[in-house]
Amino acid sequence: MKWLTMKKNGAHRLGVQLEEGVLDVEASLASHPADGVPIEPTALLQSGTQGLQALADYVSELRRLGLPKLLAADEIDWAACVPKPGKIICVGLNYRKHADESKLPYPPVPLLFSKYGNTIAGQGADICIPEGTAEVDYEVELGIVIGLKAASVDEQKALDYVHGYCAVNDVSARDWQMRTSQWMLGKTADGFCPIGPYTVTADEVGDPQNLGLRTWVNGELRQNSNTKDMIFSCAEIVSYVSRHMTLEPGDLILTGTPEGVVFGLPPERRVYLKSGDVVSVEIDKLGKLTNRFV
Amino acid sequence: MKWLTMKKNGAHRLGVQLEEGVLDVEASLASHPADGVPIEPTALLQSGTQGLQALADYVSELRRLGLPKLLAADEIDWAACVPKPGKIICVGLNYRKHADESKLPYPPVPLLFSKYGNTIAGQGADICIPEGTAEVDYEVELGIVIGLKAASVDEQKALDYVHGYCAVNDVSARDWQMRTSQWMLGKTADGFCPIGPYTVTADEVGDPQNLGLRTWVNGELRQNSNTKDMIFSCAEIVSYVSRHMTLEPGDLILTGTPEGVVFGLPPERRVYLKSGDVVSVEIDKLGKLTNRFV
Repeated sequence: MKWLTMKKNGAHRLGVQLEEGVLDVEASLASHPADGVPIEPTALLQSGTQGLQALADYVSELRRLGLPKLLAADEIDWAACVPKPGKIICVGLNYRKHADESKLPYPPVPLLFSKYGNTIAGQGADICIPEGTAEVDYEVELGIVIGLKAASVDEQKALDYVHGYCAVNDVSARDWQMRTSQWMLGKTADGFCPIGPYTVTADEVGDPQNLGLRTWVNGELRQNSNTKDMIFSCAEIVSYVSRHMTLEPGDLILTGTPEGVVFGLPPERRVYLKSGDVVSVEIDKLGKLTNRFV
Repeated sequence: MKWLTMKKNGAHRLGVQLEEGVLDVEASLASHPADGVPIEPTALLQSGTQGLQALADYVSELRRLGLPKLLAADEIDWAACVPKPGKIICVGLNYRKHADESKLPYPPVPLLFSKYGNTIAGQGADICIPEGTAEVDYEVELGIVIGLKAASVDEQKALDYVHGYCAVNDVSARDWQMRTSQWMLGKTADGFCPIGPYTVTADEVGDPQNLGLRTWVNGELRQNSNTKDMIFSCAEIVSYVSRHMTLEPGDLILTGTPEGVVFGLPPERRVYLKSGDVVSVEIDKLGKLTNRFV
């Protein structure tokens, strides 16, 4: 299932992307009530496999009864597909060729840092280049959305705790990131974590280690790789993180970016993002996320 | 005002520490209703100066009418004084003598890193030493509790955005912290951020740059310094952070620890925390926070 979050009257509403258009779950439940169907995104994430199954069954039932009026993409006020992640955990230097371009050795363990919730933005949101940085960069990343509480889980079972995946742009102010030894400052400006458009459930994604991922800046292809190039797989990352902190439903893990970021170019060829630039990140099966920098 | 959070029937309740005992605000409001008085801790933090004033006025009114039955400390099921901070922002190497013992230069700007919400614990909570670390250390820190939304605020006005202060133990697994270049892993195990017992409002604390702070391990004094030794003051930190991300009510900033941590000792003299150790951190005007490691 491919689901999304819409803004309506200051609240977050759950949408399901069908071939024919987007189902507004709350509106649909008002006219076709059903028990146990999560009515909004956070409820869906908290409801585990049962809630997801109830939603899938509900959509099947609606198909049988006749689908209600669906929404077109341009009728939607998009919010971040996971509107309020608990933790936002980032993995650094997790693609071989990106570590190469950064001239850094492959990390022997996942290298973890963080963003705060103020960074979360959705499909189509304008992202403000804050005062005081001149080096804003893009990073396409596969986002893992946790679905079940996970503490010290084995690598073999780690993907059972994953609700789904989404495309993420791990926007980074390189001058702020490198100002001290700790990268967080350059990762956590307001709006620096656009995600979406969709959360695609794990069953529909299948193997997360064979997804193409790409970035365009103003239509020019800049990153073009595949999650095959990851140093630590999604299963290894979820297991590793869960052995150091308890993961909760709605936590988001960013699995690192491949080569092709501005920072990876020789200094004299680096042209960072400026006001008016439009950046799209796309991942196979997850859709394309587009944001303008202002 | 000195307030605290209590657990009752799975919910968080607001308590006010009076000389005579602790006022259970929700219980009191049930028998003596009043308009505009925040009923629980998050509401208090979100209600700005108005909510705080309404609560203070309510307590005065109760004194006039005759105080209801108050609770003794041992009748309380303590929760973290700020039960669900938004961001937990940590400042590293912010005391001159701690930078000296760490053999690191004084940072030219505040050095920021993070903990996640899974770390939050309260007065009296047992803190689990997780599997896989042998180097768990204490750090007494002055916690700043943000009271108003703050974006790009001047240093001169920064303290106007502070709701209050609390004592914090920034528990750290040094082996995890130093495993990669990014310290976060060693800072964010479950329960690694006990705070409290109280949030003491800014008006009652006065100057945050003249507070003694101390740590005891099993009754032995280990840290004993004063916030005067900070490299960056609370006002400088709030202003600096607010110029890089928007601060929200309920965000918590840990302002660094003074000298005296285990990690500051010569390697051959380092004895890290073990199961059964009882650690207390105390800050002038903020009270003493005690936790046992298990």
